[in-house]
Amino acid sequence: MNHLLIVAHGSRREASNEEIRFLANHLRTITNPFDNIDCAFLEIAEPSIPDGLRHQIALGAKKIVVLPYFLSAGRHVAIDIPEQVDQVAKEASHVEMTIAPYLGSSKKIGELMMQQAIAGLGI
Amino acid sequence: MNHLLIVAHGSRREASNEEIRFLANHLRTITNPFDNIDCAFLEIAEPSIPDGLRHQIALGAKKIVVLPYFLSAGRHVAIDIPEQVDQVAKEASHVEMTIAPYLGSSKKIGELMMQQAIAGLGI
Repeated sequence: MNHLLIVAHGSRREASNEEIRFLANHLRTITNPFDNIDCAFLEIAEPSIPDGLRHQIALGAKKIVVLPYFLSAGRHVAIDIPEQVDQVAKEASHVEMTIAPYLGSSKKIGELMMQQAIAGLGI
Repeated sequence: MNHLLIVAHGSRREASNEEIRFLANHLRTITNPFDNIDCAFLEIAEPSIPDGLRHQIALGAKKIVVLPYFLSAGRHVAIDIPEQVDQVAKEASHVEMTIAPYLGSSKKIGELMMQQAIAGLGI
């Protein structure tokens, strides 16, 4: 059982949190190798990362990939997310947890930016 | 003269700001319809959005596309960036300024996320 947990920052604007839940739903509809896809939030919104991981463990996850939905490798990506994941990993040594490369590190980000920029140019 | 200004939040971690400058450099190297590509920051880092826009105007920009390098449509995207762009647009009515759809609104974000997640799965 391979599970994916998308981790976003969490916002006081509930609409921003809903965007993440919508994305998690969307990812379930595209071809993917995961038995389950959920989202969780570093701060402010629910579920927290530990709660999200524990829920997936309760569902029978054997391997959980945590995907940081962040554009840059700041403190949240480098320190805060790994700390919260480690906390749960210690409780559940039978479950393998890995943190995927954060979204902004994708080599295709430049291409996506250019597409958005061209949309703005209106040509 | 069509110019592109990539706008990121700005970070206390200079490495994060350097990532944005690196991305702007990268975008110059791929096929694109812009005569000039620069970056600017909403807060903390330099140049500010008004300074970035004024620099492009001084270089002869006739149309400037501002691309919000943000994943969600929070206050920064909805209010702060438009306010700062409007401020300069009032000074330079001969220059057309448009704000492109923010990065996270790209329909391809889901695909990119899945690629990163699969990289994390290590298969």
